[in-house]
Amino acid sequence: MRVLLFDVFGTLVDWRASLIETAEATAPTGADAGWALVIDDWRRAYQPAMDRVRQGAAWQDLDSLQRQTLDDVLTRHALTVSAADRETLVRGWRRLRPWPDSGPGLDRLRRKYVTATLSNGHLALLADLLKFADLRVDAVLSAQLAGSYKPDPRVYRTALELLECQPEDAGMVAAHPSDLRAAAALGLRPIFVRRPLEWGLGTPPADPPALAGVLATDGLDDLAAALGC
Amino acid sequence: MRVLLFDVFGTLVDWRASLIETAEATAPTGADAGWALVIDDWRRAYQPAMDRVRQGAAWQDLDSLQRQTLDDVLTRHALTVSAADRETLVRGWRRLRPWPDSGPGLDRLRRKYVTATLSNGHLALLADLLKFADLRVDAVLSAQLAGSYKPDPRVYRTALELLECQPEDAGMVAAHPSDLRAAAALGLRPIFVRRPLEWGLGTPPADPPALAGVLATDGLDDLAAALGC
Repeated sequence: MRVLLFDVFGTLVDWRASLIETAEATAPTGADAGWALVIDDWRRAYQPAMDRVRQGAAWQDLDSLQRQTLDDVLTRHALTVSAADRETLVRGWRRLRPWPDSGPGLDRLRRKYVTATLSNGHLALLADLLKFADLRVDAVLSAQLAGSYKPDPRVYRTALELLECQPEDAGMVAAHPSDLRAAAALGLRPIFVRRPLEWGLGTPPADPPALAGVLATDGLDDLAAALGC
Repeated sequence: MRVLLFDVFGTLVDWRASLIETAEATAPTGADAGWALVIDDWRRAYQPAMDRVRQGAAWQDLDSLQRQTLDDVLTRHALTVSAADRETLVRGWRRLRPWPDSGPGLDRLRRKYVTATLSNGHLALLADLLKFADLRVDAVLSAQLAGSYKPDPRVYRTALELLECQPEDAGMVAAHPSDLRAAAALGLRPIFVRRPLEWGLGTPPADPPALAGVLATDGLDDLAAALGC
């Protein structure tokens, strides 16, 4: 392998705890349950929104999709949030804390591999997020450059072309089996990162997908050690 | 300003001394003049090669253009260089040393601005080069993403769109007046960096272009100080 592509939301950064914190600071719900259920529902609404693009609707960036799904989710939870506060929540996706091993692990892996994000976040969001989280990669790549969203194969193919990389020389690093299945189907090595807290304490994390050659790790330091970095 | 876009070859890295060194180590010419004249001619052949693309020929990456112009230049200088050595020279554009102020200056500027390359080098080349030179930016952007070459206005417009930036919120940082003129025509702030050694000791550097609002600096540390970073 020469290139490692990294999923971002959930794999490198803790979207859930960060967004709950942003939401509680921005707009207390008054409900005992607080924001956790809303944020989880918001995140669940993300795949169906991207599906419409993957199935041929005009590409929209993640901010646009998140604005629409946030409105729906707030309505379902009967919450009234001002337009300014809703925008703060949407922008909250640019202020997500990294998992503790993400920064040090990326730095170790970067010594031996060309590292790049391959996220459904668009470039402007990723530039802000990587700066906020102080994460360094050699190239910031996004599904935006393919005008689609993962797991559309065009997204992975575009990233490989831009990095002049054959599929067998690349690994896809992600906490999500669907991302890894799509990458593996194209010949990239699937590298699973277990993120037990992605959906909070009460929800068990995904199991590594049963894919040929899958490398299952407990974080980026663990991955760096496994790859001899 | 919120965003700073950086030219790379000549502005952040010393292509000339680096390539002369690579060439001398790879294929001694036997001529007294050595490689300097050849490298300078090679660099001069770069604009006409890009012109063909800017005027509508199919986009080719910089490696492809450099391969063609290197063959021409070597023929003109009556030099015989093996195919493997020619490829080493083309790949030499990924191993260019930074000017001493580039890394520290970028780090200072990155604290206050979103920083991105905007180079005629393609992404794969830039990822390798930034890694080699240990230069950190928030986003790696290339003329490739517009399918053209600077100073085509589409290149600057594409970068601004990807960073969600209005022209008046961006500065273009370059050692070359043509780059700054094109950026300024679109409303970006032109920021000139004097690089007295770009073409070697015997060739005086370009003067800052006479553009409204131009900021003329002697390097990236100087620029960081001027911008209060």
